[in-house]
Amino acid sequence: MRVAILSDLLTEVLIPVASVVGIFFSLLQWYFVSKVKLSPERQTRGAHDHGKNGYSDRLIEEEEGINDHNVVVKCAEIQNAISEGATSFLLTEYKYVGIFMVVFAILIFLFLGSVEGFSTKSQPCTYSKDRTCKPALANAIFSTLSFLLGAVTSIVSGFLGMKIATYANARTTLEARKGVGKAFIAAFRSGAVMGFLLAANGLLVLYIAINIFKLYYGDDWEGLFEAITGYGLGGSSMALFGRVGGGIYTKAADVGADLVGKVERNIPEDDPRNPAVIADNVGDNVGDIAGMGSDLFGSYAESSCAALVVASISSFGTNHELTAMLYPLLISSMGIIVCLVTTLFATDFFEIKTVKEIEPALKRQLIISTALMTVGIAIVSFIALPSTFTIFNFGAQKAVKNWELFFCVAIGLWAGLVIGFVTEYYTSNAYSPVQDVADSCKTGAATNVIFGLALGYKSVIIPIFAIAVSIFVSFSFAAMYGIAVAALGMLSTIATGLAIDAYGPISDNAGGIAEMAGMSHSIRERTDALDAAGNTTAAIGKGFAIGSAALVSLALFGAFVSRAAISTVDVLTPKVFIGLIIGAMLPYWFSAMTMKSVGSAALKMVQEVRRQFNSIPGIMEGSAKPDYATCVKISTDASIKEMIPPGALVMLTPLVVGTFFGVETLSGVLAGSLVSGVQIAISASNTGGAWDNAKKYIEAGASDQARGLGPKGSDAHKAAVIGDTIGDPLKDTSGPSLNILIKLMAVESLVFAPFFATHGGLLFKIFWNGK
Amino acid sequence: MRVAILSDLLTEVLIPVASVVGIFFSLLQWYFVSKVKLSPERQTRGAHDHGKNGYSDRLIEEEEGINDHNVVVKCAEIQNAISEGATSFLLTEYKYVGIFMVVFAILIFLFLGSVEGFSTKSQPCTYSKDRTCKPALANAIFSTLSFLLGAVTSIVSGFLGMKIATYANARTTLEARKGVGKAFIAAFRSGAVMGFLLAANGLLVLYIAINIFKLYYGDDWEGLFEAITGYGLGGSSMALFGRVGGGIYTKAADVGADLVGKVERNIPEDDPRNPAVIADNVGDNVGDIAGMGSDLFGSYAESSCAALVVASISSFGTNHELTAMLYPLLISSMGIIVCLVTTLFATDFFEIKTVKEIEPALKRQLIISTALMTVGIAIVSFIALPSTFTIFNFGAQKAVKNWELFFCVAIGLWAGLVIGFVTEYYTSNAYSPVQDVADSCKTGAATNVIFGLALGYKSVIIPIFAIAVSIFVSFSFAAMYGIAVAALGMLSTIATGLAIDAYGPISDNAGGIAEMAGMSHSIRERTDALDAAGNTTAAIGKGFAIGSAALVSLALFGAFVSRAAISTVDVLTPKVFIGLIIGAMLPYWFSAMTMKSVGSAALKMVQEVRRQFNSIPGIMEGSAKPDYATCVKISTDASIKEMIPPGALVMLTPLVVGTFFGVETLSGVLAGSLVSGVQIAISASNTGGAWDNAKKYIEAGASDQARGLGPKGSDAHKAAVIGDTIGDPLKDTSGPSLNILIKLMAVESLVFAPFFATHGGLLFKIFWNGK
Repeated sequence: MRVAILSDLLTEVLIPVASVVGIFFSLLQWYFVSKVKLSPERQTRGAHDHGKNGYSDRLIEEEEGINDHNVVVKCAEIQNAISEGATSFLLTEYKYVGIFMVVFAILIFLFLGSVEGFSTKSQPCTYSKDRTCKPALANAIFSTLSFLLGAVTSIVSGFLGMKIATYANARTTLEARKGVGKAFIAAFRSGAVMGFLLAANGLLVLYIAINIFKLYYGDDWEGLFEAITGYGLGGSSMALFGRVGGGIYTKAADVGADLVGKVERNIPEDDPRNPAVIADNVGDNVGDIAGMGSDLFGSYAESSCAALVVASISSFGTNHELTAMLYPLLISSMGIIVCLVTTLFATDFFEIKTVKEIEPALKRQLIISTALMTVGIAIVSFIALPSTFTIFNFGAQKAVKNWELFFCVAIGLWAGLVIGFVTEYYTSNAYSPVQDVADSCKTGAATNVIFGLALGYKSVIIPIFAIAVSIFVSFSFAAMYGIAVAALGMLSTIATGLAIDAYGPISDNAGGIAEMAGMSHSIRERTDALDAAGNTTAAIGKGFAIGSAALVSLALFGAFVSRAAISTVDVLTPKVFIGLIIGAMLPYWFSAMTMKSVGSAALKMVQEVRRQFNSIPGIMEGSAKPDYATCVKISTDASIKEMIPPGALVMLTPLVVGTFFGVETLSGVLAGSLVSGVQIAISASNTGGAWDNAKKYIEAGASDQARGLGPKGSDAHKAAVIGDTIGDPLKDTSGPSLNILIKLMAVESLVFAPFFATHGGLLFKIFWNGK
Repeated sequence: MRVAILSDLLTEVLIPVASVVGIFFSLLQWYFVSKVKLSPERQTRGAHDHGKNGYSDRLIEEEEGINDHNVVVKCAEIQNAISEGATSFLLTEYKYVGIFMVVFAILIFLFLGSVEGFSTKSQPCTYSKDRTCKPALANAIFSTLSFLLGAVTSIVSGFLGMKIATYANARTTLEARKGVGKAFIAAFRSGAVMGFLLAANGLLVLYIAINIFKLYYGDDWEGLFEAITGYGLGGSSMALFGRVGGGIYTKAADVGADLVGKVERNIPEDDPRNPAVIADNVGDNVGDIAGMGSDLFGSYAESSCAALVVASISSFGTNHELTAMLYPLLISSMGIIVCLVTTLFATDFFEIKTVKEIEPALKRQLIISTALMTVGIAIVSFIALPSTFTIFNFGAQKAVKNWELFFCVAIGLWAGLVIGFVTEYYTSNAYSPVQDVADSCKTGAATNVIFGLALGYKSVIIPIFAIAVSIFVSFSFAAMYGIAVAALGMLSTIATGLAIDAYGPISDNAGGIAEMAGMSHSIRERTDALDAAGNTTAAIGKGFAIGSAALVSLALFGAFVSRAAISTVDVLTPKVFIGLIIGAMLPYWFSAMTMKSVGSAALKMVQEVRRQFNSIPGIMEGSAKPDYATCVKISTDASIKEMIPPGALVMLTPLVVGTFFGVETLSGVLAGSLVSGVQIAISASNTGGAWDNAKKYIEAGASDQARGLGPKGSDAHKAAVIGDTIGDPLKDTSGPSLNILIKLMAVESLVFAPFFATHGGLLFKIFWNGK
C-alpha cells in the first residue's frame, strides 16, 4: 500500500487556496456587474466605464432610450421594492428558523449526550474496540457545534444569493437595452457570483471546522468526522425551510397573480397594475434563489460529510493518511478551478449575439465543465490517493484501487450530465414531448393535464437507470464510499450548476422589471428569451439536485447503517418492510401538505387581488397604485405558517421512528422514502417544466404547429395556462422540496445513530422484548 | 401438536358444497332479475309476477307511463346495442389475449422444463432434500396446465360479469319507473349474481384442480402446490389485459364523449345525439365490470396460491394434514356463506324507500359482512387448524398457534374495512375533503387540480398505516403465511365486495339508458342517485382491491423468495438496491403508458365525434342518427393496440430481470414496485373519485355551498368537469391497473422461480463471475 503523491502539507494549503480563489473570482464577477449603474446621472459614464472593463462595447446593438433617466429611476425603485420584500421575508423566516435551530441544537446535544449518560470518560471506538476514542459527550458537543455552523453557513448562502440576485435583476434589465449579449453576461455573471461564493464558502468553512475540531480530537479521526456530520444536518435542515417556505411563497404569489391577472382580468404577466406582482418577483428570489442555494449547499455539505465519515473508518482513517482522507475536499477544490475556467467560456471566450445562441451557450457550460472535471478527477485521484487502500463495507474491509475510485467519481459526474440532458429533452419546447403536450391543448385543459402528467412519469425512466448504474458501479468498486464520492462527483461542478440555475430567476425578474418600468417591447422580448433558456436550465438544475440527492442519501444511509452497527437491512423482516412501505408513503404525505399549502395561500392571494381590483378605483387604468405590501404580507405570513407542518414531518420522522421503532425500521423508512421520493421529485419537476414551456411554445408561435394553437388568449392557450398554473407548485414547491426530504432524513438518522443504536426501538423493547 | 377437529373427509365435502351453494344463490338472484321483462307485450304480467317473487309490490311509488310500450322497446334496443358492443369488444380482446396465452404457456413449459433439462427423473425435494419429489418436467407441465386453467377461468369470469351487467342495466332502468327501491334491488341483485358466481366458481375450479393434480402428485404436496401457482398467474395475466384494455376503452370513450358533448356542444351526458354515447356505455361494462371481475378473481386466486404454496412446506404439508392445508379454501367457503347471509340484509331484511338510504345500505353490507366474517374466521380457525403447528420462515420453522392465525386473517379483513372507510371519507361528497375540492373550483380548474392531487396524496396515509400494521402483526404471528392469509381475509368477503362494485356501473348504465330512451327526468334522478352511491362504493372497491393486492404481492414475494432459496433481501447490496429503485420506477413507466394511451385514444375519439357533428346534418336536432358503430370501433382498436406495450412491460420485466440479473435484483424490483405502486394506485384512484364527486356535488346543489358553486354550466362547474375528465384515466385506467402490475410481477416471479434460481443472473455470471 503506497502513500499518496500529494504531501499532507500541500493538501492543507491547496484546499484553502482553491476556496480563496473561488471567493476572489466571485467578487470579481460582482465587480463587473456593479459597473452597471442604477443611478441615472452617472448612467452614461457608467456604461462607458463598463465598456472598458471586459465587454469592449461589442454587443451594443441598440441604444434607443439609453438616456431615459426616468426608466432607470423606475428600475431602481422596483428593484428596491423587490429587494426589500425579499429581505424582509428572509429575515422573518430566519427568525422562526432560528428558534428551530436553537431547539434542535439542544435536542442534538441532549440525545447524543445521553448515549453514555453525559459521561466525560473516554470510551472504546465503535469500529476498533481495542482503541480509545473521545467520550460520547464530546460527540454531542461537536455535533451540535457543527450543526450550528452548517445551519448558519446555509442561511448566509441563501441570503447572499438573494442579495446578489436582487442586485443583479434591474442591472440585467438595463443591459438588455444595449443588447441580448450584454444582458446575458450580466445575468450569467450574477449567477456566477452566487455559484462561486457558495461553493467556495462551503468548502472553506468545512475545511476550517475540520482543522479546529482536530485540535481537540487529535488522532481520533472516527470521532472527528462523525461530529462533522452535524454540518450536513445543519445545512440541510435550513435548506428544508428555505425550499418549503420559499417555494410556498413564490408559488402562492405566482398562482394568485396569474389566476386573477392573466385569467380573469386579461392583463399580461408582471403588469404593474397587478397587486401581487411585487410578491411574485420577490418569490423568485426567496424561492428559486435562496431556497435552491441552501438546497445545493446542503447536498454538497452532506455528500462531503458522508464521504468523510465512511473514509474515517477506512484505511485512510486508521492509517491517518490526511491527503487521502481529504480526497472529497480536494475534488471540490478541483471543481472550483474547473468551473472558473468553464465560466470564461461563457463570459470571455465566446460571445452571444443572437437569442438563439443563449441556450447552446448554457448547455455548453455543462458539457465543458463535465469534460474538464473528468480530467480534474483523474489528476486528483492519481496524486491524492494511495494506489490501493481499503474501505469499510458493513463489517468487512474491501480493497480498492485509486483508478476504481476515479470511476466512482466520474460516473457520478457523467450521470449528472445524462440526467441534465434527459431533463432538457422532456422540458424544452425544442423537442417533441413538450410539443405533444402543447398540441394536446387543442382539446382543452384536461388532455393537457393528462399528457403532462404522463410526460412527467415517463421522464423518470432514464434518470433512474442512470442513477441505478452509478450506484451499481460505484458500490461494486468502493462500497458506500464509492456512492458518496459519486454524489460528490455529480456535485463537483456545483459552481457552474448554480450559476446557470441562478441565471434563470434573475432573467425572469429582469423581464418583470422591464414590464413594470414600462420599457419598450423589444426589451421584454430579449429578457423573455433569456428567461425561456433559464426555464430549461432551471429544470436541468433540478434534475441535478434530485439525482445528487438520491446518491447523497444513499451514501448517508450507508453511513448511518455502518454507524448504527447494522450489517443487513433485510426487506423480508417485518420491521424493515413496514418501514419501507411507510417510507415510500412519506413523500406523498409531504407533497399533500406542500401542495395544499400553496393552494390555500394562493386562494388567499386571489381574494386579496380581487378585492383590490374591485375596491381601488383607477387601478385597471393605471392611475392608482395597487397595495403591493399587503400581497407581500399575505405570501410571507402564509409561507411561514405553512412551512411548519411539512418541516415537522421531515424532522420528526427519523426521531420518532428511531426512538420508538429502532434502527431497522428506520433503515426501511430511509430506503423507502429514497426510492419513492426520487420518482415523484423528478416527475413533478418535469411535468411542471413541460407545462410552463408548452405555454411559452404557444405564446412564442415560432412554428406552424405553435401558430395553429395560439395566439395568446386562444382556447388552446388558456388550456396551456391552466397546465402551467398546476405545474407551479409541482415544479417549484413539492418537487424540489422532496430532494431535501430524502437527504435530510438520512443525515438526521446518521447524526442520531449512536442514540438510536443505544436507546432506540423503545416500542419493540417494551412489547416484544426487542424481538 | 393436535390435529384439526374437522375431518379431512368433511373438508373435501364442505368446500364443493359451499361453492355449489354460492353458484345456486347466484342463479337464484339471476332468476329474480330476469322477472323484469324487456318485451313490452308481457310487461304488465311480468311486473305482476315480479311482485309475487320477493318484492311484494311494496316499493311501487310511481306508475306513470308504466305501460308506455315504446319506452320498453327503446330500452331493449339500447341494451342490445350495448351488449353487442361489449361482446364484440371482449371477443376481439380475447382473440389477442388468446394468442398471448398460448405463447406464454409455451414459455412457461420451456422455462420450467429446462430447469432440469426436461429430465423425467424424480429429484430431491427443494426443502427436504432427503425426500424425493416429482421431476421438474412435471412441474412444467402442471404449471402450464394450471396457468391455462386460471386464464380461462378469469376470462369466463369477466365475460359472464359483462353479460350479467348488460342483461341487468335496462331492467334497472325499467324498475326505476316503479321506484328507487325496486331499481336498487334490481341493480344490487345483478351485482350479486356476478359476485357469487365469480367467488364460487373460482373456489370450485381451484378445488377441482387440486384434487385432479393430486392424482398424479400423490404425497408430493410441495410439488403439487407449486404447480398450482400457475392458476394465480393465469388469472392475473388475463386480468392485466382486461383492466388495461377495458380501462383504455372506457376512458377513451368517456373522455372523448365528454370533451365534445358536454364541453363543446353543451349537451348532457348520455345524450343519444352524442356519437360516442354507446361506446361510453359499453366501456362501463368492459372496463369496470369485466376488468374488475378478472382483477379481483386474480387477487383471490393469487392469495390462495400464495397461502397454499407457503403451507405446503409447513407442518401441514410435511405431515399431510389435508384440512389444515386447505384452510385458505375453507376460509373462502365460509366467506361465500357469510356473504350470502349479508346479501339478504340488502334485498330482504331491509327495504330502501328513499334516495338517502342507498349509500347507508351499501355501507351496511360492508360492516355486516366484516362482522359476520370475523365470527366465521374464528370458527374455521378453531375447527380446521391444529392448536399449534409450524410455518416455514425463510429457512427456519416458526411455531404458530391457531388463534394467532385467526388474528392474521381477521386483521386483514378489518384492515380492508378501514381502507374502505378512509376511501369513502376522501371520495364521498358528504365529507369535507371533496367539498374543499369542489370549493376550490371557484378559482378555476388549476386550483381544482392542485387540491385534487393533494387530496389523493393525503388519502394514502391511513391505508398505508393499515397495511403496515396488518403486515407487521400477521408476519409476527405467522411469517409469510400470515401475510398470505391476511390477504385472503381481506378478500374473504369478495362476493359482497364484487356485488357492491358491479352495482355501480350497472346503475350508471341504467341512467344512460333512461337518458337515451328519452324517459322522464324523475327516472334519471333516481338512477343518478343510485350512480352517485355507486361512485363511492366503486372507490371503496378499488381501495379493497389495492389493499389486498399489496398484501397478496407481499405474500407472493415471500413465497418467491422461499422458492428461490434466498434467505435475505438486503437493501445494502447493490444488486438489490438497484432493483429496488428501478422497481419503484416501474409504476411510473406503466402509468405514463396507460395515461398517454387514454389521451391518444380520446383525441381520436374527439376528432371522430367532432367530424360527425359537423358532417351529419340534423344530428344536433335529433333528426339524424349518429354513427355509433364507428366510435365503438375506434375505442376497440385503440384499446387493443394500446394494451400491448404496458402488458409487455409487466410480463417481461420479471423474465428479463430474473434471467439476466438474477433473483436478488428481482427481489428488489418486486419490493420496490410494491411499495411505490401501492401509493400511486391509492392516490390516483382517490383523486379521480374525488374529482368525479366534486363535480356531482356541484351538480346536485344539495347545500348552500354547492348552490353557490353551481349550477351546471357555471365557471366553477366547468372547472369541476375538467377535473373529472383528468381523473377518468387516473381512477379507471392507471390506478386500478397498478394493482395488477404489482401482483402479477410477484406471481410470475414465483412461477418462474426454479428457472431463475438455476439459470438466472446471466449478466452477473458472465461479467462478474456471479459476484
